[in-house]
Amino acid sequence: MWDDWIAEASAAREAAGLTRRLRPRGPDDGVVDLAGNDYLGLSAHPDVRRAAAKAAMLWGGGAGASRLVTGTLTLHGDLEDELADWLGQPGALTFSTGYHANLSIVGALADRTAHVVSDAHIHASLIDAVRLSRAQLTVVPHNDVDAVRAALAARPGVRTLVLAESVYSVLGDEAPLTDLAEACAEHGALLVVDEAHGVGVHGPGLVHRRGLAGRPDVLVTATLSKSLGSQGGAVLGPRAVLDHLVNTARPFIFDTGLAPASAAAALAAARISRARPDLSDTIRARVTGLAQTLGVPAPAGAVLSVPMPSPEAAVAAQANLLAEGVRVGCFRPPSVPDGVSRLRVTAGAGVTDEDWDRAVKAIDVIVGDVR
Amino acid sequence: MWDDWIAEASAAREAAGLTRRLRPRGPDDGVVDLAGNDYLGLSAHPDVRRAAAKAAMLWGGGAGASRLVTGTLTLHGDLEDELADWLGQPGALTFSTGYHANLSIVGALADRTAHVVSDAHIHASLIDAVRLSRAQLTVVPHNDVDAVRAALAARPGVRTLVLAESVYSVLGDEAPLTDLAEACAEHGALLVVDEAHGVGVHGPGLVHRRGLAGRPDVLVTATLSKSLGSQGGAVLGPRAVLDHLVNTARPFIFDTGLAPASAAAALAAARISRARPDLSDTIRARVTGLAQTLGVPAPAGAVLSVPMPSPEAAVAAQANLLAEGVRVGCFRPPSVPDGVSRLRVTAGAGVTDEDWDRAVKAIDVIVGDVR
Ligand SMILES: Cc1ncc(COP(=O)(O)O)c(C=O)c1O
Ligand SMILES: Cc1ncc(COP(=O)(O)O)c(C=O)c1O
Repeated sequence: MWDDWIAEASAAREAAGLTRRLRPRGPDDGVVDLAGNDYLGLSAHPDVRRAAAKAAMLWGGGAGASRLVTGTLTLHGDLEDELADWLGQPGALTFSTGYHANLSIVGALADRTAHVVSDAHIHASLIDAVRLSRAQLTVVPHNDVDAVRAALAARPGVRTLVLAESVYSVLGDEAPLTDLAEACAEHGALLVVDEAHGVGVHGPGLVHRRGLAGRPDVLVTATLSKSLGSQGGAVLGPRAVLDHLVNTARPFIFDTGLAPASAAAALAAARISRARPDLSDTIRARVTGLAQTLGVPAPAGAVLSVPMPSPEAAVAAQANLLAEGVRVGCFRPPSVPDGVSRLRVTAGAGVTDEDWDRAVKAIDVIVGDVR
Repeated sequence: MWDDWIAEASAAREAAGLTRRLRPRGPDDGVVDLAGNDYLGLSAHPDVRRAAAKAAMLWGGGAGASRLVTGTLTLHGDLEDELADWLGQPGALTFSTGYHANLSIVGALADRTAHVVSDAHIHASLIDAVRLSRAQLTVVPHNDVDAVRAALAARPGVRTLVLAESVYSVLGDEAPLTDLAEACAEHGALLVVDEAHGVGVHGPGLVHRRGLAGRPDVLVTATLSKSLGSQGGAVLGPRAVLDHLVNTARPFIFDTGLAPASAAAALAAARISRARPDLSDTIRARVTGLAQTLGVPAPAGAVLSVPMPSPEAAVAAQANLLAEGVRVGCFRPPSVPDGVSRLRVTAGAGVTDEDWDRAVKAIDVIVGDVR
């Protein structure tokens, strides 16, 4: 029964050209990496490596228990203080992944009696979070503030969360945060902004840049695994909300605390990120330049999505670029909200100018051929 | 609206004496730690620390992307090979937490058309996994194989997963794995065994010890954060199942790969664990001895649960023990399946004989007073 079911699913993927395979990489294969999310190149920064190594030597390999038992380290507190201070928030709580942070904030606040208004392009972790919460869900068209307002007006008096990403992961566009916050304030709703692709790329993030940081009705989730070059996640907002998470969020309570090396790496990266605003500037310059070269709109984040005619064309272009020593990503169904396959090019600050220029030329030639 | 709701939830917790607060600890506070899940003491082992530190220096702070993009490191492959070989399984796939491993295996295999038969004491991560999957759920009384058989017989021809833990986290008792596997085989069901508290404590785990390792209808999930002293999780089983996870498990696909330091720490710990079967023997001796001293039944795992008359009594005993330099855990609602508060004492192999003996004496006095 199970064998047949698994074999059929596998055959269906093969037939659709959608089989995914893992391709292990070594620590340094000489390829210019424009596929990852280490936007500021901080995972490889000497200070980050050393901070992680020192923490592993001092604290050991793991936190050893749930944060509620003995798994809360003073190191977690240092990281949380640094993140809160940087992002202009009253407090922060770290999680072992960004996924856990998203599952937790929605799961702890929303229940059957709550209403969640979610942007159509929201990340899988937030979709799962809503499912888990059993809240009533309204999915609104992408970046449509009027639709959000209508959804809020439709259920007056119901505790409502509105979910958005500051920079969306696939299209790389920006949420209308100011308008969303205003709509939420009008209706007594809470806005939850996932800054996975905003923090670092835009310094302290777009919630901060738009003057919304510290508002009690605008909560932020973040990941430590992209611009902060590590692993883990965080929720930032009022202490009362964080205390509520500590007491009720299952993926926080029933999970081992973030590993010391990862906490220390993220802390070091946050400090570098604060001290080096020029890294964000490099990203802006690169992503705008590449968008111009390819004749596609410049994204709000560090990732340029290049629509391709088919999944096969996307995969072929990716392979050709790899043969030229340039690694780019590739989005195919089911990882895209609209079914369109895309090349995914990260205009990060972690590669040298020479490598970047060489990569841009290769992309221009190969993508130009296909599109 | 939200402020009131959060304030009310907080007041209700306070009134019930159930407020949880984080208590940060330093790298070494001189307390004998019998509260964590670092059962073999490997988080602090010099080889584990060094392996984590070396990996951070070599690979950087993070994996940099999803496992499906550039986040699969050869280091992940090394870890997966070691785990599969040790546990006697055809293959392994690592995740960034044990929670993710559980969400993934259930979410990828079960859907609305599937049936899940779950033990009543199953871990929060598996409960969440079933909710997310939207499968039809039958909860059976704890360790009741007849009830499992009845649930299987009630839905013939339906793809069914049976969920168990080899050693249950709260009561510390063992699942009747051989009988469960037989029941599953009779009905064409898959048995999923969470070995979070079995691996390491029982060498390669109880699935292996019961001769069930490598059976295609018995899947194993494990965490790297307890006996392996690190962070992360794993699913072990047939390659076809793992390939299915790679292609469909959302908490695998939409999550950053496990941090290099954590992967390396777990790999080093697995090697030590294999080379040092005496560590499991120490645990057995300690846990049996302590159970005898306290006059409670010896658990199958490393954790002794000591029922207490009330949450307050449990918290008070915990505080008194801490004043004596011994840290134990405390289970209170909602972290217990039956509402009974308990002290939780880890009889790990990571403390010296002197510390252990001193701790046992203190526990005997203080717990004796209260019960
Ligand atoms: C928008 C968004 N939110 C959350 C996550 C999850 O973060 P993490 O990888 O730290 O679990 C990701 C990607 O991984 C993401 O793109
Ligand atoms: C039975 C069981 N399964 C899974 C987990 C989750 O593992 P992790 O902490 O690695 O997320 C835990 C505890 O944390 C557990 O006790």
